[in-house]
Order: sequence, then C-alpha cells, then structure tokens
Amino acid sequence: MKAIACTERGGIETLKPVTVPKPSDPEGYDVLDYPDYYTRCPDPPHVLGFDGAGTILSTGPSVKDLKPGDDIFYSGSPIRQGSNAQYQLVDSRSVALKPNNLEFVQAAAMPLTYITAYEALVERLAITKGEDAGILIVNGAGGVGSVASQIARWVLELPVVVTTASREETQSFTKQMGATHVVNHREDIVQQIKDLNLKTPIRYVFITSRTEQYLGPAAAVLEPFGKICSIVQTQEFPQYGTEMMAKSLAFMWCLLGTKPYYGVQLESHGEILRELKGFVEEGKVKCHLKQRLGLNYEGLRKAHEGLESGKGIGKVGLSVDLVGERGKAFT
Amino acid sequence: MKAIACTERGGIETLKPVTVPKPSDPEGYDVLDYPDYYTRCPDPPHVLGFDGAGTILSTGPSVKDLKPGDDIFYSGSPIRQGSNAQYQLVDSRSVALKPNNLEFVQAAAMPLTYITAYEALVERLAITKGEDAGILIVNGAGGVGSVASQIARWVLELPVVVTTASREETQSFTKQMGATHVVNHREDIVQQIKDLNLKTPIRYVFITSRTEQYLGPAAAVLEPFGKICSIVQTQEFPQYGTEMMAKSLAFMWCLLGTKPYYGVQLESHGEILRELKGFVEEGKVKCHLKQRLGLNYEGLRKAHEGLESGKGIGKVGLSVDLVGERGKAFT
Repeated sequence: MKAIACTERGGIETLKPVTVPKPSDPEGYDVLDYPDYYTRCPDPPHVLGFDGAGTILSTGPSVKDLKPGDDIFYSGSPIRQGSNAQYQLVDSRSVALKPNNLEFVQAAAMPLTYITAYEALVERLAITKGEDAGILIVNGAGGVGSVASQIARWVLELPVVVTTASREETQSFTKQMGATHVVNHREDIVQQIKDLNLKTPIRYVFITSRTEQYLGPAAAVLEPFGKICSIVQTQEFPQYGTEMMAKSLAFMWCLLGTKPYYGVQLESHGEILRELKGFVEEGKVKCHLKQRLGLNYEGLRKAHEGLESGKGIGKVGLSVDLVGERGKAFT
Repeated sequence: MKAIACTERGGIETLKPVTVPKPSDPEGYDVLDYPDYYTRCPDPPHVLGFDGAGTILSTGPSVKDLKPGDDIFYSGSPIRQGSNAQYQLVDSRSVALKPNNLEFVQAAAMPLTYITAYEALVERLAITKGEDAGILIVNGAGGVGSVASQIARWVLELPVVVTTASREETQSFTKQMGATHVVNHREDIVQQIKDLNLKTPIRYVFITSRTEQYLGPAAAVLEPFGKICSIVQTQEFPQYGTEMMAKSLAFMWCLLGTKPYYGVQLESHGEILRELKGFVEEGKVKCHLKQRLGLNYEGLRKAHEGLESGKGIGKVGLSVDLVGERGKAFT
C-alpha cells in the first residue's frame, strides 16, 4: 500500500465551485463547520478520512524534498479526497517523514490531533514556552485532549495543566499524558478548581468537548483577560450572565481545516509534523493510539461506533495489516 | 470645583461584599456586564458618572507624582463613587495631567472612550503599528468609534480603516475622524465591502454597537484567523451558521471596567491617559466633543435622552460653567 505525494502545490486555486444540490429542507443544510462547504468540496463521491500514513508511490516534478519510497504521515484537507482509501493524492507541503520509532498505524494516529492541539495552544491561544500560567483542558483523555496536555506540559512547559476526566481509567490516562491536576467534569468544575488553591492563575482554557456546557465554567475560573479556545461547533453560545465580558475574556475557534480550506499558510502542517517527528523520536511526545482495527468496512464501523459512544480514550487506528509493520494506516 | 486624587492606592482590597438586596424577580437581576456587581458596588446611594476632569484639592501621603492644584482628567471605576458630583475621590494611578490645549469639558470627553478604544485596538486585538491590515469599525461616528478610528489611522497607521455610518452628517464626521472608507450599516455591509475591492485584507473588526447584528457580517468580511472585539453586551451571540469557526476567528470582549473591577493593572489607565495628553497636544488625536450641557439635573437629563435616541455623534460633555474655562466637567 502506497501513498502519493502529489505534484500540485496547493490546490485551492484549482477548485471550482461545483453544483452539489443542497438538501431541499433549508434546516437540514449542513452548515456545521463551513457555511459554504458544498460549493468547495470534491465532486461526489467524497471519500472520507483525514489522517494517514504510508509510502510515497510517486511525486510530481515540483516536489523536491520527498521521493518515492519515503514513509510519510499527514493530515488531510476537507476539500480533497480523504484517506479511507487504498491510494491517496496529498499535497506534499502537508506531509512529513514518519517518526522512525512509530509503526504506520501509530503514526497515523497523530497528525489531526497533534496539529489541532498545536494550532490551538501555540497559534490561537499564543501560549509562550515556560509561561507562569495554568491551562484547563476539557476532556483530557480524548484524542485531542491527550495530545494537548502533552504539548502544554512537555513542549510549552506550563507549571499547571488541569484536565477533566470522570472515570478511573481516563483519569489515570490523562495523568500519563501530562495532567498535573485532574477534575471530574461530572461534578462542579469551578468549585473543584477553587479547592485546588492553585498559586498559578488559569490563563487558558482549551475546550475539546461540548463548548456550550463549558463556556460558563471557563469564564468563572479564568483570570481577567484570559483566553478560551474551542474546537467543537455549537448552536448555543452562552455569554450573557457569565464573566466573559466582565473579565474581558477572549474566545477563539480552532479548526484544522482553516488553512487547507482557504488556501492559507499551506506549508504550516508539514512544518508542524516535522517538529512532531523529532518530539516523538526523543520521547517528549507519546503516541496516544489506544486501539487497533482493520482498515475495512468492519473496522470503520467499529471505530465510528466507539467514537459515537463518547467513551473513547486516546485514538483508534485502522491498518491494512493489523500488526502495522508496513502499509497504510488511518485513524 | 475640585477633584481629589485619593490616598488609597488600589481599593479592590478594601472592598467587602455588601448585602444589597437583589430584585425579587430573578429575571430582573441585572447581570448585564458584571454577574457579581451587587456584591462589589459601593453602598447605596451609588453616584453614577465615569469620566471627569478637574483640579486636585488634596492628595494622600503616598501620592508622589501629583499635587493639589494640578488639573487632571480621568475615567472612573465601576466599584467607586462616580463623577456626577461636586467632589470625587479617585485613584491617583488612574489619572493624568489634563492636555494643555483642552478645556475641562473637552478633556472630560476623552478618557472613557479613548481608554476603551485603546484597550480594544492595542491590548485586545493586539494591532501592531504600521501593520498591512484593514479594520472595520462599526459605528464610526459614535463616541468610542470616532476615537477608535483616529487611533487606527493616526496612532497605529493602518492603511485601511472602514467605518460604518448611515447619515450624511455622521459619514462626514467619521471621515474627519480617520475613516479611509465608509459603508452604510443600513444596507448590506458585506456586499459594500466586497465592492470596495480592497487590496489590504480586513484582519480586525471592532464592534461598538449591536454585537448580535454584526457578528455574522464581521465573520464574512474577515480573513482567516481574523479577530473581532466588541464592547457591547448581548443576549444573542450568533456563531453557528457563520464563518466564525471555518475561519478560526477570535472574538474578544473589551470592558474598560475590567482592570479597576478586578484590581489588576491599576497603573494602566493613568499611563494610557499620559500618552493621550501628548497625542492631543501635538494634534495627532482630536477631541470629539460635539455638544456641551450644564452639569445639573437638566443637563444630565438631556444628555441621557440624547444617548438613548441612538443618534449621537461624538461626545456630550457637561460642565459647571458652560464655557468650561475652569471647574469640573463630565461626559
């Protein structure tokens, strides 16, 4: 199984609006993340799947830094065909060489969650390395949360990384992944954080689950001028009656798709993954793959059911060969 | 008429929760800006009024940089007694010497609007001087909008300052106050800005009126990773169905009261006003006082009626002597 690093650099400029019929019921029109998605997505059928890892089959003439036979890992683009397929055309700028100490299926577990967490913490929240500040990460044992807590603790070296987790298993996992303190999101988060008597103020909140539920508590625990970042779309967005305005707080969305969707900073994802390769090889960031399934209909079905149950820990990876020694892998 | 620079430095630490009865109807409980306002505001009666200018009557022993007889201007604190009074106790750190070329009533027109606009553009949106970026300022002819557009154009030297104004009079005023382009907020803002064919991307939006109405258009005109700042509280906060998430946009509240309310960065307002004094004296920033009234019941009534009409231009100032040569003045 091989992946292909494509010749086309970019791609946004080659996209033309396509006439995909909108659902007749305007309420049913999916504006979840991108309001104009159906004018930009590929002609049907649209292959799903973001993350991938594999071996380059061929490259275009303008690709200089990668060659056939290279093992790579990457996240995808919302407006290209996805990774739930045997072969895939990917933008060479968005890939990096696979970390030497990871199997394909492990490597494929990392790009989407790592890039998302990196963009949230480093680019959107603009946390400075070694800053004397605390962060609250909602759902510390989830796919993005368990990478975000590693970045916060070991890359950005924050002294206080509070995560939320409710079960013994997830609490233990989030501590392995960098949490300095864990609070239970099934109980009163604000009171639990008050009871921690932290010397370091909470300056950042990263929401990876149920934005509408955590905005109020985030506003209550943040210091004045603090920042909240979320990756989860919501129809309810409570501000009124919270400390959001009183404390002059900032809220920022983080969506991995923004750069490929609008064709901006297209070198960025490759750069972030090249740095990740180094962190993984030196042991600073750990792979959070927790379950392996076959890359087939049965595996995809099981993986989606697991995600929908809301009880996921870390990442689920799918591989053409379950031992993952060679071949293509997805998460 | 004299103003007093007080001995107490700070004040937040001397505040004790007071038991002001809440309105019996929970829906009537005013959580407009500060959810816990009634535990922090002064014992009744609470004198209203923010901005002021006047002459120092006496200072406390720890005040070193100001002395009786100094003419000063300042904004107030939401948890101290206000400026609609003959004498006022103010935190010496929050005041600056009055610009030499302004009368009291003119000087009193500036602190609240200037500090708000400065904090919004420089601290919250973090605009860099000389940046190749555009800003959209909603309600360019209003009190805060007409100072913000001056800061954007003449202090931060942005090449594109688009403001909104609907009447001939307000459109003319906002151009004097720094707007490079004016669009009519009674028509389609997004289309009008598209039609301007700007070479410089809109990276910032500053909302000084009807937040709920301008979030969607702001998201549509901003470049990816752009920022929105608002100073106007709202119960509706549309995000879903807009480009807010797709573009990974940031939204930040700006409230002048945050620093005095929470007792943080208490030197800041004085510093901002000292810089403003220089800008006003060199003619870089113009006073936007548009109407003078007497500082009495009749004047206060007229001033509030004017504000409530929604047709205000610039600022209304109240003065003990209408010529404003000497004495205390409020806006």
